[in-house]
Amino acid sequence: MSYQASKEEHPIEIVNIASLEKAVKERMEAGAFGYIRGGAEDEWTMTENTHSFNKKQIVPRVLRGIDSADLSTKLWDIELKTPIIQAPSAAQGLAHENGEVDTAKGVAEVGSIFSISTYANTTIEDAAAAAPDAPQFFQLYMSKDDKFNEFILEKAVKAGAKAIILTVDSTLGGYREEDIINKFQFPLPMPNLAAYSAQTESGDGEGKGIAEIYAAAKQAIVPEDIQKIKELTSLPVFVKGIQSSEDAEVAIAAGADGIWVSNHGGRQLDGAPASFDLLPSIAEVVNKRVPIVFDSGIRRGEHVFKALASGADLVAIGRPVIYGLNLGGAEGVKSVFDHLNKELSITMQLAGTKTIEEVKNTKLVSF
Amino acid sequence: MSYQASKEEHPIEIVNIASLEKAVKERMEAGAFGYIRGGAEDEWTMTENTHSFNKKQIVPRVLRGIDSADLSTKLWDIELKTPIIQAPSAAQGLAHENGEVDTAKGVAEVGSIFSISTYANTTIEDAAAAAPDAPQFFQLYMSKDDKFNEFILEKAVKAGAKAIILTVDSTLGGYREEDIINKFQFPLPMPNLAAYSAQTESGDGEGKGIAEIYAAAKQAIVPEDIQKIKELTSLPVFVKGIQSSEDAEVAIAAGADGIWVSNHGGRQLDGAPASFDLLPSIAEVVNKRVPIVFDSGIRRGEHVFKALASGADLVAIGRPVIYGLNLGGAEGVKSVFDHLNKELSITMQLAGTKTIEEVKNTKLVSF
Amino acid sequence: MSYQASKEEHPIEIVNIASLEKAVKERMEAGAFGYIRGGAEDEWTMTENTHSFNKKQIVPRVLRGIDSADLSTKLWDIELKTPIIQAPSAAQGLAHENGEVDTAKGVAEVGSIFSISTYANTTIEDAAAAAPDAPQFFQLYMSKDDKFNEFILEKAVKAGAKAIILTVDSTLGGYREEDIINKFQFPLPMPNLAAYSAQTESGDGEGKGIAEIYAAAKQAIVPEDIQKIKELTSLPVFVKGIQSSEDAEVAIAAGADGIWVSNHGGRQLDGAPASFDLLPSIAEVVNKRVPIVFDSGIRRGEHVFKALASGADLVAIGRPVIYGLNLGGAEGVKSVFDHLNKELSITMQLAGTKTIEEVKNTKLVSF
Amino acid sequence: MSYQASKEEHPIEIVNIASLEKAVKERMEAGAFGYIRGGAEDEWTMTENTHSFNKKQIVPRVLRGIDSADLSTKLWDIELKTPIIQAPSAAQGLAHENGEVDTAKGVAEVGSIFSISTYANTTIEDAAAAAPDAPQFFQLYMSKDDKFNEFILEKAVKAGAKAIILTVDSTLGGYREEDIINKFQFPLPMPNLAAYSAQTESGDGEGKGIAEIYAAAKQAIVPEDIQKIKELTSLPVFVKGIQSSEDAEVAIAAGADGIWVSNHGGRQLDGAPASFDLLPSIAEVVNKRVPIVFDSGIRRGEHVFKALASGADLVAIGRPVIYGLNLGGAEGVKSVFDHLNKELSITMQLAGTKTIEEVKNTKLVSF
Repeated sequence: MSYQASKEEHPIEIVNIASLEKAVKERMEAGAFGYIRGGAEDEWTMTENTHSFNKKQIVPRVLRGIDSADLSTKLWDIELKTPIIQAPSAAQGLAHENGEVDTAKGVAEVGSIFSISTYANTTIEDAAAAAPDAPQFFQLYMSKDDKFNEFILEKAVKAGAKAIILTVDSTLGGYREEDIINKFQFPLPMPNLAAYSAQTESGDGEGKGIAEIYAAAKQAIVPEDIQKIKELTSLPVFVKGIQSSEDAEVAIAAGADGIWVSNHGGRQLDGAPASFDLLPSIAEVVNKRVPIVFDSGIRRGEHVFKALASGADLVAIGRPVIYGLNLGGAEGVKSVFDHLNKELSITMQLAGTKTIEEVKNTKLVSF
Repeated sequence: MSYQASKEEHPIEIVNIASLEKAVKERMEAGAFGYIRGGAEDEWTMTENTHSFNKKQIVPRVLRGIDSADLSTKLWDIELKTPIIQAPSAAQGLAHENGEVDTAKGVAEVGSIFSISTYANTTIEDAAAAAPDAPQFFQLYMSKDDKFNEFILEKAVKAGAKAIILTVDSTLGGYREEDIINKFQFPLPMPNLAAYSAQTESGDGEGKGIAEIYAAAKQAIVPEDIQKIKELTSLPVFVKGIQSSEDAEVAIAAGADGIWVSNHGGRQLDGAPASFDLLPSIAEVVNKRVPIVFDSGIRRGEHVFKALASGADLVAIGRPVIYGLNLGGAEGVKSVFDHLNKELSITMQLAGTKTIEEVKNTKLVSF
Repeated sequence: MSYQASKEEHPIEIVNIASLEKAVKERMEAGAFGYIRGGAEDEWTMTENTHSFNKKQIVPRVLRGIDSADLSTKLWDIELKTPIIQAPSAAQGLAHENGEVDTAKGVAEVGSIFSISTYANTTIEDAAAAAPDAPQFFQLYMSKDDKFNEFILEKAVKAGAKAIILTVDSTLGGYREEDIINKFQFPLPMPNLAAYSAQTESGDGEGKGIAEIYAAAKQAIVPEDIQKIKELTSLPVFVKGIQSSEDAEVAIAAGADGIWVSNHGGRQLDGAPASFDLLPSIAEVVNKRVPIVFDSGIRRGEHVFKALASGADLVAIGRPVIYGLNLGGAEGVKSVFDHLNKELSITMQLAGTKTIEEVKNTKLVSF
Repeated sequence: MSYQASKEEHPIEIVNIASLEKAVKERMEAGAFGYIRGGAEDEWTMTENTHSFNKKQIVPRVLRGIDSADLSTKLWDIELKTPIIQAPSAAQGLAHENGEVDTAKGVAEVGSIFSISTYANTTIEDAAAAAPDAPQFFQLYMSKDDKFNEFILEKAVKAGAKAIILTVDSTLGGYREEDIINKFQFPLPMPNLAAYSAQTESGDGEGKGIAEIYAAAKQAIVPEDIQKIKELTSLPVFVKGIQSSEDAEVAIAAGADGIWVSNHGGRQLDGAPASFDLLPSIAEVVNKRVPIVFDSGIRRGEHVFKALASGADLVAIGRPVIYGLNLGGAEGVKSVFDHLNKELSITMQLAGTKTIEEVKNTKLVSF
């Protein structure tokens, strides 16, 4: 029997983001849910990602005459209605039969950025066509085969990608126990791989585990790869998976146009610090030379606020988007953003901050 | 069917304040209980409010010849039998059919201060008449409509209010999930709103949610509003909702006669520090220029002691009073104060402090 | 029906001290058990008393050629086979029909010190007669009535007490909720009170609650009381209930011959620090001028070691002795000491310390 | 009925090491399982051993061009395929009828070091014969009887031991409650003891408890014993059970060729710090003069990484090996090493470290 994904297409009622996980678990095939939800090993880093936000607090400021919050912001010259963007995630066909197409639509509706993964269940072209006027990025998992890299980047450029996200923290899959227990294999093809016939090692991804997929990818990623991508695409390159100020410096020196601070949602190296704990030292080194996107652990508008106040220019959400996609298609994705925007808006007003710039200039405290 | 509130009128047996919540939950309609008990989002700040008292400890002092504790104190020239006052809270008709009238009576009996909210289910006049010789304050939620503010403040002055409490931390309702889940709407009219016909936006409050109520209120509160209120009333103004030394300074510079340190019992900004954690730095800046009232998280006489020793002149209790009101009317309110006074008295004697002044001069420790 | 206490007279098998509580709970009348086990209010301080030992650790030292541990020590010229003594506790008739007589016998058998409380269910004389050659102390709860104090101290001297323990932390009973819930009253007479006819206020204690008993006691204890007792008895005076270096200094300046660091097992001021946390700063001030006894929270030989290494000369155990008394009479008391001695002995040898003096000179660490 | 041990001989499927404990518990006689799993007293130190690894974190480094991890390393001139070696443990016949023979085989297959205990259920000769080309160490529990020490060391030398491990932290058995509850006695003979007829006190170990076994051992171990062993064997001597920089210095000064940092898996002194917490200060003093082996608490490749990054040259695993032995014999032992090697390999690559030397030069962080 073939894989049955969701066909829902409607807004969803959201009390909070955390509760979506349970709702999805009840509907989704265990292996797929385990793949989406799971983190590496003891899930210490994954859990700490969200808990670490509690280590710092927002002091509410009053008497500032603030009667609303303005969430709009910019990345380079891209106007955004929210500082929350979508984090690229593979295989969204697991969550919904329209997969990345619906995600792209939902994200476009809220005025944010959608990024499509090399390992998507949708072609770059189809995702682009789903939301032609909205900004989209392409997330590259480099192949060992340079020809594939050229091939796929060319497709991204043609499809109108506004930036390339180079993922550098996944030269190997993290040890995710739920996938091991479930013997999880991707049940659906990955057409961006399939489109390139020479990509034989992992074929089109269907029937492969994450270890096999990553095995076909390039492990030996080096700073020079950043420049190569820039030459091939003339697009700005975000380096995703930076967790140290040293690597941020290396990436910028090598030409990175943006630093994407992430520990892959706790799916790669367990025993690593929470991503939020590392953000301030990275932001200090980056020192506004290039924009910083932050992800890993965001589940509340409060978390968005704290990440922005700790040096991020934008934050990205991964699993919540996939849960929204599963529960309501494009409209469900929109509901997730709407909900977080609402929480962020309330947090900003109660904190006495009217604009994203003011949020960024807020000093958190710690008790 | 109309809302059924408690009609109890008798003292209540109290082992501890925490246990009242359970007793009330078993009796009260879920939506009303959720509104009273609930805090914002994950209730992290609400929970931390009470837990934070454990971070500091009282070193018991001995051999001081202390054979009793004297709880009496003063606020300006108001003589009080206890440093514990009542924190203004809206819609006390939810807890008891006599609402604020019973609370006012109970608070008067223990020689403390009652404050009536703009959003009370009782008129300012009726609450004043219930305890004509006792000190009462009026808690103002400013309206966008200046005429309403003038109208309601004039009523407060005429009713004999001893001070105005300007709430500044609620320019928007906190995101309280229990209210969302219960689709809570106030089931009873708010006669202080109803009395002013132009207050059309939220009507008399009946059938509205907290978001709608706050939407009619003034969001853009500024320091100049303090002076305006003083001119309209010639009464001292407490600014309630201060959580930073910076805002305490702003408020005093703008004419505040008292600083009310509060995070609204964790009902507004989740992810904010415990109110107790912020108290010492605020007290340092205030430096005795004006009195400080502290609320948020007080459930023990020990907490009262620790707040006083950290810079508060008085502490206020909110939910415990409402629980007492529900369980025993005016007598139940009195029981709550009696119980906390008893715990405070024992704490003071065992700590080797005879007077409130000595408590204030106690240095807490931390291990 | 009159109170039924234990009649057991046999050694008890002990895996660990913590497990005794459960065994006793199953056998003892709820009110009596609640009185013995319970602490004040939230039992935060009581719980912290034992948990605080985990904050410091013992670094095991090796290669020191230690093949056994020697637990013997001295208090003044009193030779002891163990640094663990019995902490005076009231009303031991609750635990065993022989009450303090059995405790005195059991403690004598292990070569340690027994102390009899003013509020004992046995006369000072009977307890003394039970173990004529063993050292005994008398714990004084001062009365408001000076004649009673003279009367009872004279009895103690005649009975051969080696020291007087002046309890200074109980000028009022702590707020112990279990006693409130159980409406606990002492079911048995206190013959040391009964012997003095003028002690009318609390009579002989039978049928009274702890609040009434303490109400008859002297609240206004001052440093001069130490000297008074010394003049009346010519015995050394331990001041019990010291929790600050300031009070240790006051007590020594007033003539104290020993400092007994205790928070009454968490039964008095909740919200006070763990007694163990306060010990080092007190020991520093005492600076070996007088001996220090430590109690509150000791449940392991490891705890004894850590207290000695933090400045105590002896440690005292309260509830564990009462549990042993209930489960096995005098032999049960002995079993409790034997067990803790065994744990202490193992701890000492594995820590590389042969003598109590070496334990005292051990530096604990903290991670 | 005689003791029934496992006869399994096959690889085992391992999701993680922690889950093996449960699997073994379901199969093994309670007393034997309790002896193997249990720690001293409250098992605080045992638990902290593993938890302490969470106090420090590994910052993932990227863009380093690392496409694989090389686990090979050396101890003196012994080539090893992994930095994970087997920690000597007594009485492996409890886990498998082939006992140490199977362990030796499994360890040899993964290119690591097996160490046989004085208290093994297999002779030194039989264990050596099981894996004739693999490096083996001999773990000495010194006897009070010097002749026995000479006798057994001579056997070790003849059997080809590459080093002697002198255990110095067990001059007495820790107080392990599970053994007390189970009245555990070794059900099988210890032939290394039996071979020496004069070793009468504890006989061949069969039917003895751990306290009796240790009682026959030498308690008064001194630095000079190191030199004695070196003279008797001309082999390098590891001193096992070092937990302080002071003792590391003493041991090296006395001729130790290696420092084995261990708290015996939390089986000896409860209330001691986690072994991992003590490692950095010991490594600092040792300063590469001799190699450091670390054990106690290792359950993840991540832990191996963190120990190496904190100063260890090799790490040792105890209980996991015994669990693997029970579940699959020699193949099960191999499965345990294979699994940990796999986790370590993933951790190294995701951390951006290619070699064990690079791991050792990694700086952990702490939030």
